Amino acid sequence: MHISELETPALVVDLDIMERNLSRVAGYAREHHLRLRPHTKTHKVPALGKRQLGLGAVGLTVAKTTEAEVMLDAEPADLLVAYPVMGAQKLDRLRRVAKRTQVTVALDSAEAARALSAAGVDVRVLVEVDLGLGRTGVAPGDVAALVQEVVALPHLDWDGLMFYPGHIKGMTGEDEARLARLRRDLHDVLLTLTALRLVPRVVSGGSTPLLFHSHTIEGMNEIRPGTYIFNDLNTAAMGACGLEDCAATIIATVVSRREGHMIIDGGSKTFSSDRLATGGADFGQIVGMPGAVFHKMNEEHGYVDIRECKNAPAVGERVQVLPNHICVAVNLHERIYGVRQGTVEESWTVAGRGKLQ
Amino acid sequence: MHISELETPALVVDLDIMERNLSRVAGYAREHHLRLRPHTKTHKVPALGKRQLGLGAVGLTVAKTTEAEVMLDAEPADLLVAYPVMGAQKLDRLRRVAKRTQVTVALDSAEAARALSAAGVDVRVLVEVDLGLGRTGVAPGDVAALVQEVVALPHLDWDGLMFYPGHIKGMTGEDEARLARLRRDLHDVLLTLTALRLVPRVVSGGSTPLLFHSHTIEGMNEIRPGTYIFNDLNTAAMGACGLEDCAATIIATVVSRREGHMIIDGGSKTFSSDRLATGGADFGQIVGMPGAVFHKMNEEHGYVDIRECKNAPAVGERVQVLPNHICVAVNLHERIYGVRQGTVEESWTVAGRGKLQ
Repeated sequence: MHISELETPALVVDLDIMERNLSRVAGYAREHHLRLRPHTKTHKVPALGKRQLGLGAVGLTVAKTTEAEVMLDAEPADLLVAYPVMGAQKLDRLRRVAKRTQVTVALDSAEAARALSAAGVDVRVLVEVDLGLGRTGVAPGDVAALVQEVVALPHLDWDGLMFYPGHIKGMTGEDEARLARLRRDLHDVLLTLTALRLVPRVVSGGSTPLLFHSHTIEGMNEIRPGTYIFNDLNTAAMGACGLEDCAATIIATVVSRREGHMIIDGGSKTFSSDRLATGGADFGQIVGMPGAVFHKMNEEHGYVDIRECKNAPAVGERVQVLPNHICVAVNLHERIYGVRQGTVEESWTVAGRGKLQ
Repeated sequence: MHISELETPALVVDLDIMERNLSRVAGYAREHHLRLRPHTKTHKVPALGKRQLGLGAVGLTVAKTTEAEVMLDAEPADLLVAYPVMGAQKLDRLRRVAKRTQVTVALDSAEAARALSAAGVDVRVLVEVDLGLGRTGVAPGDVAALVQEVVALPHLDWDGLMFYPGHIKGMTGEDEARLARLRRDLHDVLLTLTALRLVPRVVSGGSTPLLFHSHTIEGMNEIRPGTYIFNDLNTAAMGACGLEDCAATIIATVVSRREGHMIIDGGSKTFSSDRLATGGADFGQIVGMPGAVFHKMNEEHGYVDIRECKNAPAVGERVQVLPNHICVAVNLHERIYGVRQGTVEESWTVAGRGKLQ
């Protein structure tokens, strides 16, 4: 099937670009002796998780226990749930998943550690430390105490540390300072733990924006990038890839036109209403239409200003839109279409779509 | 099952409030002799469409042809696709749907009308007119020409006009002026059509924010509110309902805490990243926790500032969040749980979730 025969809106992935992205990061991790445990929340497709494993990933990462269940189909040797697991049903689900593969859980509280241990689930545990993002994770000074608590609890096998450097979005002066601070804090934590004879096997960090700086963070031996498989405008805006490295776009149809303006058949239920993480008011970039501004959306309508655009399409014609944030866009689609040079070669159900628990 | 046993994040609907919302609007429509054709994009659940029909709705509204397919299960006597239908697959789907019920399609271009006619689908047609929103719809002065085109085309049965007053969000001075302008434009369109002996059977308008002003718009005889079944912070902020009329909330668990701050287990993949339509930086309101500010989100993390909050919950405890925009939130969930006085009475699969085509 040719790409032009796909019904719109359609989420398509350029397979050449995707494969280059996957190989580049796998090569980088290999070169720098970094474990690669990709975050699958970006694609939510077991077949793509399997490709990442085939290229040398040591395991896969998920955010929720229902995602873990779905990602078992990729047959990972190890599955990291990078999120505190709370509540009876989630612990039950984790137990079922742990029967089928090695499970690692990240946590940042004694409450979570005790509940996990009490549930009798045999898992590895990474203690999450906050190295500047201010989200989950204990403060650097509190890591040792929580590690000691985990080490003492039955069923839990303490495996190391996890952090997410989501506050470092590029390599501006401010980000350089944040990264320096992160290096210092991590160094201090590792010194403290070593003094207590608590030596982490895994120190897991690494976002997509910071990806190719990972080897400069001493003590970190694992990365968990997610977005890198597709990349998006956010990744490009942060300088972690070029626009030519963005594999995923959404094909939309122009359903209405007036002077200087057109409406496409996708809005917040197709792209999500995420703005660019680095700032900016647009909802995506229309490929090959310089001057077109995707300035507003409703649920099923995208508003594109075409006053500065020379080759605007007519009603019924199509556009290709590069989304701001591919992870939330994928979660809105039932299928992803893999395209090579205009031909749809394969397609995948987004099996983890809407898996929130 | 008690509501506290639901796994989080969970989308719950207070059945008493929902039923009151449904009855109130059904009663208003009856009282003012307005046809009610509710937009089902808010709930995407056939069983709820059926309830709306049971309360006197003349038909149901959908945005996409795939939604129409799903909503056939509600057995509507009439299904309005309030969106231009473009492309061969969509026309095929429309044909299949039209075999099972009366289908009405809204359109705003000769291109869409000709394609529909050429496909040989027997449908009723509403010509969409733009009465100020600047989205889809022909300009008031161009309505007559498009109606004449539709009337002349085989298979199309011209039924009237449709507009969406989404630019009128409340009843501020500015909105009053917009509404006055809308009334004037509609009046002019109807005069022009009447002079041409083109008398619309249906003049369909009516959003949730403008709902209870509908009887003041002369010439309009149908309303298509969607959000009113649940309502949300947007509806309340626009003054179209009170907070006590908001039926749908999302139950979330506190997964991490630090001084003055907590993280809940839902972010943009649970609530959507929609801001309040009337402005404001929050992502929802934490029920019963005055002072708590839901100020930031990532995909699976909600950041809540609790510095000004006296009764903040501990790790593992739950909060109830009133979302900004319920239509996009529902589209992210697999199920909706109907709750009465703390007990889960029923639950529905969001069958139309992700139906974008």
